[in-house]
Amino acid sequence: MPNPTAAILIIGDEILTGRTREGNAHFLAGELARAGIDLRQIRVIGDDHATISAAVRELAGGHDQLFTSGGIGPTHDDITADAVAAAFGRAIDVREDARAILAAHYAARGVEFTPARMRMARIPEGAALIDNPVSGAPGFSVENCHVMAGVPNIFQAMVTGLLPRLTGGAPLESRTWQLMVAEAAIADQLGALAAAHPGVSMGSYPFVTEGQYGTNLVVRATDPVALAAAFAALQAAFPEGK
Amino acid sequence: MPNPTAAILIIGDEILTGRTREGNAHFLAGELARAGIDLRQIRVIGDDHATISAAVRELAGGHDQLFTSGGIGPTHDDITADAVAAAFGRAIDVREDARAILAAHYAARGVEFTPARMRMARIPEGAALIDNPVSGAPGFSVENCHVMAGVPNIFQAMVTGLLPRLTGGAPLESRTWQLMVAEAAIADQLGALAAAHPGVSMGSYPFVTEGQYGTNLVVRATDPVALAAAFAALQAAFPEGK
Repeated sequence: MPNPTAAILIIGDEILTGRTREGNAHFLAGELARAGIDLRQIRVIGDDHATISAAVRELAGGHDQLFTSGGIGPTHDDITADAVAAAFGRAIDVREDARAILAAHYAARGVEFTPARMRMARIPEGAALIDNPVSGAPGFSVENCHVMAGVPNIFQAMVTGLLPRLTGGAPLESRTWQLMVAEAAIADQLGALAAAHPGVSMGSYPFVTEGQYGTNLVVRATDPVALAAAFAALQAAFPEGK
Repeated sequence: MPNPTAAILIIGDEILTGRTREGNAHFLAGELARAGIDLRQIRVIGDDHATISAAVRELAGGHDQLFTSGGIGPTHDDITADAVAAAFGRAIDVREDARAILAAHYAARGVEFTPARMRMARIPEGAALIDNPVSGAPGFSVENCHVMAGVPNIFQAMVTGLLPRLTGGAPLESRTWQLMVAEAAIADQLGALAAAHPGVSMGSYPFVTEGQYGTNLVVRATDPVALAAAFAALQAAFPEGK
């Protein structure tokens, strides 16, 4: 059975203007590879209701799982929850269990539970909550769309709680063979090897270090036997690597 | 006149598997903001011909400019040039001017001009070349689609040569006001300020440093007068900021 597929949708003007360098997608990409969920697309869009709704509809429709990051805080630019509710045609309002989680979180810290903080208890109808051990305000899953915070340590905590609930597949394993030659010098041999190992993906990533050209050859597969055979073939073809 | 719009398409399995943390989009996002070109979407996809062609068609059709990164090297997994040619319905073959650039580059360095390196002279019909002062192999522009290398220092050199050729708009300027309070504590006031300054985007970005909650309030606008007015209003509303 093929692995389930996924997309990641990052929501936030601050990334599109170059102010913030985004890192949640890179973190989740590694977690998905380990879980055996094939990430097919990462998309970054701005804080616009119609744009978010359209992207959620398209990406949730085209993949088994969709993960979003950003826009679920207490301020006026946090519009993700409403846009996701609209994408799935669901109502959204303050929900009692989410309100209780936030109330307990603030009470334990002696912090006032303001109307702005109450906004973070607005959850689309029929969603399942995603635990937020860092700052209380939960994420949520609507059908196959998992809505999480953009602040990196909160995003990571939410992913760690969420992933075991999802059905994965065979983990994608990879091995790297590094050569201190330019990739053009080995392109033909590598192309022949890739053609001879159709169940394995062979990637070639050039780099320059201290003025020397080098190439990382990466083999990836979900089948460990096929991976080992392809890696052995790489080692035999380029014995000078490491 | 509104600013031109843009999308960035990052091509490479190594990003989707979590192996590589991508940085070209962040670099270009900052350059586009300075050039007055509104970045609307960043998308990352894998090394698949049909996926690349479809994304190029969609994003080039929906934006004034499309910038791609990755997949124009000499190896079997470098399929971007062919996929872009297919997206625009153009033929692709080795082109004499690109071949001459590469031949001169390798001759000057005493490096053999192999058939694999010759692949990098394959350019879609009617494209304009983008200079590569780092490693010779040119990028190219087909209509509004600008195809560049994924290796960061080459990508940056290509962007630096390309951007002055494009028509920009009013640069997006921004100013940041930092408060050491949780964003929920100022959400209502900030929402009212945002509503009172409709030509300015006001973003709110929470952070935690040494156990203290803080919020960066960012105002962005292409009109410097509107920006200054909104920033002055922020300072007046939250005099404890810096």
